[in-house]
Amino acid sequence: MRTPALVMDRSKILSNIRELKTALPRFRIAYAIKSNSHPEIIRLLREEGSHFETASLPEIQFLMQQGIPGEEIVLSNPIKTSETIASAIKLGVTVLAFDSLDELEKFHPHKETAQLLLRIKVPNEASMWPLTGKFGSPIEWWPDIFEYMEKHSIPLAGITFHPGSQCESVTGWENAMILTWRAIKMSQEYGLKPYIVNIGGGFPIDLGRDIPTTEEIAATVNAHVDEWAEEGFVPKELICEPGRFISGSAGYLVSKVVGTAHRDKNWAYLDCGVFNGMMETIDGIEYPTLSNATGELEKINLCGPSCDSVDKMYEAKLPTLKTGDKLIFRGAGAYTTVYASSFNGFHGPEVHFVESVRDPSDLFALVS
Amino acid sequence: MRTPALVMDRSKILSNIRELKTALPRFRIAYAIKSNSHPEIIRLLREEGSHFETASLPEIQFLMQQGIPGEEIVLSNPIKTSETIASAIKLGVTVLAFDSLDELEKFHPHKETAQLLLRIKVPNEASMWPLTGKFGSPIEWWPDIFEYMEKHSIPLAGITFHPGSQCESVTGWENAMILTWRAIKMSQEYGLKPYIVNIGGGFPIDLGRDIPTTEEIAATVNAHVDEWAEEGFVPKELICEPGRFISGSAGYLVSKVVGTAHRDKNWAYLDCGVFNGMMETIDGIEYPTLSNATGELEKINLCGPSCDSVDKMYEAKLPTLKTGDKLIFRGAGAYTTVYASSFNGFHGPEVHFVESVRDPSDLFALVS
Repeated sequence: MRTPALVMDRSKILSNIRELKTALPRFRIAYAIKSNSHPEIIRLLREEGSHFETASLPEIQFLMQQGIPGEEIVLSNPIKTSETIASAIKLGVTVLAFDSLDELEKFHPHKETAQLLLRIKVPNEASMWPLTGKFGSPIEWWPDIFEYMEKHSIPLAGITFHPGSQCESVTGWENAMILTWRAIKMSQEYGLKPYIVNIGGGFPIDLGRDIPTTEEIAATVNAHVDEWAEEGFVPKELICEPGRFISGSAGYLVSKVVGTAHRDKNWAYLDCGVFNGMMETIDGIEYPTLSNATGELEKINLCGPSCDSVDKMYEAKLPTLKTGDKLIFRGAGAYTTVYASSFNGFHGPEVHFVESVRDPSDLFALVS
Repeated sequence: MRTPALVMDRSKILSNIRELKTALPRFRIAYAIKSNSHPEIIRLLREEGSHFETASLPEIQFLMQQGIPGEEIVLSNPIKTSETIASAIKLGVTVLAFDSLDELEKFHPHKETAQLLLRIKVPNEASMWPLTGKFGSPIEWWPDIFEYMEKHSIPLAGITFHPGSQCESVTGWENAMILTWRAIKMSQEYGLKPYIVNIGGGFPIDLGRDIPTTEEIAATVNAHVDEWAEEGFVPKELICEPGRFISGSAGYLVSKVVGTAHRDKNWAYLDCGVFNGMMETIDGIEYPTLSNATGELEKINLCGPSCDSVDKMYEAKLPTLKTGDKLIFRGAGAYTTVYASSFNGFHGPEVHFVESVRDPSDLFALVS
């Protein structure tokens, strides 16, 4: 196996989706393919009954090439061209998100077919990679939006939110479910009849930090759904959109040290960096990191192989590294290969699937 | 022409390299292909006698596929694997940079063939995209490095530096040339015989900010070279490595508005963003931006088409934008397509070459 490589653990992908199915039995799972769109993941998940979440027409077309029908695809990007909307609906992708009046206006020709979900703005404080700011309808917009829908007979299919990627506190879901209920009640006051709730993704994985368990998150979400039922609202459809949760913890990024230098700090230059796989490190994501080196631990500044100084990752505590040493980044199955370019001639990780990774350090032996 | 598109102006590429040849007539120009490695640019520049600067073996192999021989290629990445070094030298790429003892040790097998340039650390304060920190040998390392080279009979071919990409003050070159002279004198004291000086890139382009002219930069550089001659040091070879200067100002990135929203600020969602071309905006690069919209100017937060909230660019003062409006980013011929991934299904700009762009706004008519 040549580095950089991404080793994906099939059994972990399966146990991840099964864990979510058990915790949220009433939910339709739509895997966010932006996290890792490898066809083998699509195939494995489909066998488990998973549906898929997309953001663009090329993503929809890619899924259809893998044999996924439109009704198993959700288009959750709140801002799209009219052409994308028309093509998606024509392909049978009828569940779509929006978050503003500007976007809503594009749906006049599709009011018979589109199942529109209002993406509401919810707090993202607990997220490592927050998604608020760019998207999300704040509460003060809802009256105008609901009034417009009612007036123009554009049905509201439901409400959706995103607590932010890698959301590390149950509070993220707690607040979002309360706001969702507020949006449902308000929309009903305007005569709308929502019947879908899509809670997005954000389910965290083990990156060496404190995170709630899937059961804890599910307990909060399920309790709210139960309360709604007591109030007479039983959604016809509940959706969740895990990405990192399914693919992230199943992936091990394997890299080799190209060179070292002892500058202001200890630096190690790896064959995988910001532009060929480790993009999320620029905004604070750090992967639990192990190496085949031995000896005393020291702080080492990890960076990528390119000539670009933005290609710097983070400081890790590792045994002294030398050229040729190997590193494994846990939790790197999501948001790595999908961001990779070939900048400076350094290509993204080759992807390998294995049945199961019992001990990550077993992977060192596979590196040529 | 579908958007996003990158329109490259052939005549501007040629006038850029000719301007540099005129200003620095004693210098061998090695175009930094990492800025834009399109084969048509390679072809145009080669006809002008340009050589090429690379950072990796795949970049060298790519150039050779375009018919460029090894002796016209420089490998300026200061940190490389031993395999890359051996392959490059075998392919005739003998001018290589290094910046530390750790890296120098890899050159024992190649001391007869490698023309080693010590990459010295120089101030990067005037640069929009600084390159110091990750690379560069500080002055306190030089004695050990020169002593090691002398002791092990590893010849020092010369000195190289980089003032940082888009360096916007002549001071950047002034300081670097003084430090280069210090390094040359010191190396001679150790019995080494440097004969190459490579001043790297950093030549700025018009991004709507104050920049020195090429003549001003060249005047500083040439004056130092002349002073060295008076002191008896006439380098056998002078090299410069322009990237952005050649390709940046020749490129116009054309994008369309996918949607708008009036949140805390005015937002415009474009079909080109951080992950499919506009990567440099995350670290402060802003392109002079024009649109085909008319009306009063307002501040608009530009962002990309993906579902990712990191996909935000910068605030521009533009007429109110609406869905379907077109935007042109000037100075975007470098460090755009080369960083593009297909994240979320949004592909990088299609590249089109034209003979000449007289008025950038003519390009609006080409958009379908």
